[in-house]
Amino acid sequence: MIYLDNIAGCAPDKRVVEKILPFLTERYGNASSHFYHLGRDAFEAMEDARKEVAKLIGANSDDVYFTASGTESNNLALKGIISHPDNLHKKHIILSELEHYSLQNPARRLISKGYRISWAKVTPQGHVDTDHLASLLDDDTVFVAIQHANPEIGTVQDIATISKLVKASGAHLHIDAVASAGLLPVDVDTFQADTLSLSGTNLYGIRGTAALYIRKGVKILSVTEGGGQEQGVRAGSENIVGIVAMGEGARIVREEMSTYVPQLQALGENLMSRITSLYDFIHITGESDMSKRLPGNVSFWVEYIEGESLLMWYAVKGFAVASGSACASNILAEDEDDLEASPILTAVGVPTDICAGSVTMSLSRTNTQDDVDRVIAETPDIVDRLCAISPAFNK
Amino acid sequence: MIYLDNIAGCAPDKRVVEKILPFLTERYGNASSHFYHLGRDAFEAMEDARKEVAKLIGANSDDVYFTASGTESNNLALKGIISHPDNLHKKHIILSELEHYSLQNPARRLISKGYRISWAKVTPQGHVDTDHLASLLDDDTVFVAIQHANPEIGTVQDIATISKLVKASGAHLHIDAVASAGLLPVDVDTFQADTLSLSGTNLYGIRGTAALYIRKGVKILSVTEGGGQEQGVRAGSENIVGIVAMGEGARIVREEMSTYVPQLQALGENLMSRITSLYDFIHITGESDMSKRLPGNVSFWVEYIEGESLLMWYAVKGFAVASGSACASNILAEDEDDLEASPILTAVGVPTDICAGSVTMSLSRTNTQDDVDRVIAETPDIVDRLCAISPAFNK
Repeated sequence: MIYLDNIAGCAPDKRVVEKILPFLTERYGNASSHFYHLGRDAFEAMEDARKEVAKLIGANSDDVYFTASGTESNNLALKGIISHPDNLHKKHIILSELEHYSLQNPARRLISKGYRISWAKVTPQGHVDTDHLASLLDDDTVFVAIQHANPEIGTVQDIATISKLVKASGAHLHIDAVASAGLLPVDVDTFQADTLSLSGTNLYGIRGTAALYIRKGVKILSVTEGGGQEQGVRAGSENIVGIVAMGEGARIVREEMSTYVPQLQALGENLMSRITSLYDFIHITGESDMSKRLPGNVSFWVEYIEGESLLMWYAVKGFAVASGSACASNILAEDEDDLEASPILTAVGVPTDICAGSVTMSLSRTNTQDDVDRVIAETPDIVDRLCAISPAFNK
Repeated sequence: MIYLDNIAGCAPDKRVVEKILPFLTERYGNASSHFYHLGRDAFEAMEDARKEVAKLIGANSDDVYFTASGTESNNLALKGIISHPDNLHKKHIILSELEHYSLQNPARRLISKGYRISWAKVTPQGHVDTDHLASLLDDDTVFVAIQHANPEIGTVQDIATISKLVKASGAHLHIDAVASAGLLPVDVDTFQADTLSLSGTNLYGIRGTAALYIRKGVKILSVTEGGGQEQGVRAGSENIVGIVAMGEGARIVREEMSTYVPQLQALGENLMSRITSLYDFIHITGESDMSKRLPGNVSFWVEYIEGESLLMWYAVKGFAVASGSACASNILAEDEDDLEASPILTAVGVPTDICAGSVTMSLSRTNTQDDVDRVIAETPDIVDRLCAISPAFNK
């Protein structure tokens, strides 16, 4: 199988696996047990990992807090900041239209608690419309969330410009860098981020560990309460295996990005130009300028063809790829409930009458030119088969 | 080193490690990626693990939800139930005095949101006073939390009696079985539990994975919001490595408890009788009837001697043991802030003028008679040293 779904998590790097093996056997201490060596050993390994994660994003290591997922990091940033007593007087939250469900869904639930939620519009290429964002910012704005890069359409935001706007308003700026860290430079000071999310699996670590950067001085309440772990911000026994994996992953990507990212960029450009040249009814989503996309991220839709059917055929041929859920073209569906609009595709204004979902291919440092050649070679057969059985295509 | 701190987490079983290794290498799929084999493989491994966890507690597997810690499970039970719209009309929460911080602390924060918190008293042996509990229950009671067994003092509650009381009142009953599962029979129907917490590391799995049982029909809101994982109750990419580990651990303890628990009971009885016979100023905390304690759990305090000093000396001699924080005997402390009362020791009424903290030794299935012999052999030297430098002891 050729794995082209690295936005869903990368295979752990071999060095990550080697690094964690001792923590599965003899180094099993609880990092909160300071009185004996085995506990201190776990604590020190955790702090070493924290330093590596901090280095990757230009942060102080005591501003990095481990969590269990990018989802938890995003939840903690949003709920922790708005619920702190010093922030309760402000009731306006702004999210870009491209934010992850782990920001969209908790924000929506806050409406019943008296919060206003505004959605910053994006251009057809997926860039936040800064004029619109500026028009939304007001004295009541407590929290603004902007995704550095969107995993589904690949578009990379101009965070420096956005952050100037947001910080001038006095609102907290949260950056979701889950999809971008390890592929693009992420620096909390350049970004002027108050909080920033990262996930271990996107750094060649393992699932179940992520981190939230919280700038010193940002007022935040814990969400998961209990013991005093993570400076009282996030309770629960520390997942040392996952934390050590994330630290090693962060070290690897920091040290090796300058080598593998140009390779990924070249592979991505090659994949995108060849896939779009196959048919004139294949359309790229997001940014067609590869310098403004996640390296190695290519997403597209095929007129009248369901994204999920494409996925299934790619799987049959041995390729793991992802889809944004099918958008509003329900004409071909037996069960309309299956076809919820992808909010991302809707946000970038794909034509819902002829788009029935997209495909995203996301490469990692281990993908090769041969992988690209093979997926290009198989794509015509897949598209031809699906066109042949598509009534809408043939009418 | 001899590890006698299994309440802080057990060393992973070798079979657990073997079981997870493929998920660190070739089986790295995202359990939410259903379109290709690698994703379905992860999903199926997760569901197999869920079945094993369910079997351990007599539950249906679709009532078992994975989380990242016992702390998160306890938080989810409390916050998820009280915040569900159908439960908002009730504002009274009851916790036993022995509950974990992950219930105590979120409950305390709820006072500012209009909730009343009552604390069910415990006897000097650590058993919930059922008359007192009965007097607290009222029509306004939405949530009652009872810890099956307390890790610090070892006392096991008579859950069957308590649950009859609680369920008759119409309140939700939450059982924290983090410390007891794998050591005592835990059955959600016998317990009449609405929710029940378990942790992977206490089942010879790895830290970072836990579970919450939620009885079908119990109204609960998600706490970590985002994607639809765990039936929408707990969002975030699933920690497959930790989940597979917890499933294998659950299988092992279910199949092997009948063998190792009697051994642990015998070792615990031997340890307790010998440690108390060393000095007449060593006192057991909690229940002295071993049939009402966690198997292999022995905790004690030494008149006028700080628990933390004992811990440090045990560590010097090569033993990993735990302490409840020192209680109110601040007379010997340089910095009073160091000595917060352990709420557990206070709850069971240890004499705060002569008790300066306790020691807990918690054995696992891998501890041996030799471990017990060695800790007994070294204890007199430790106690004698600390008595010699204790002004209170010598006055």
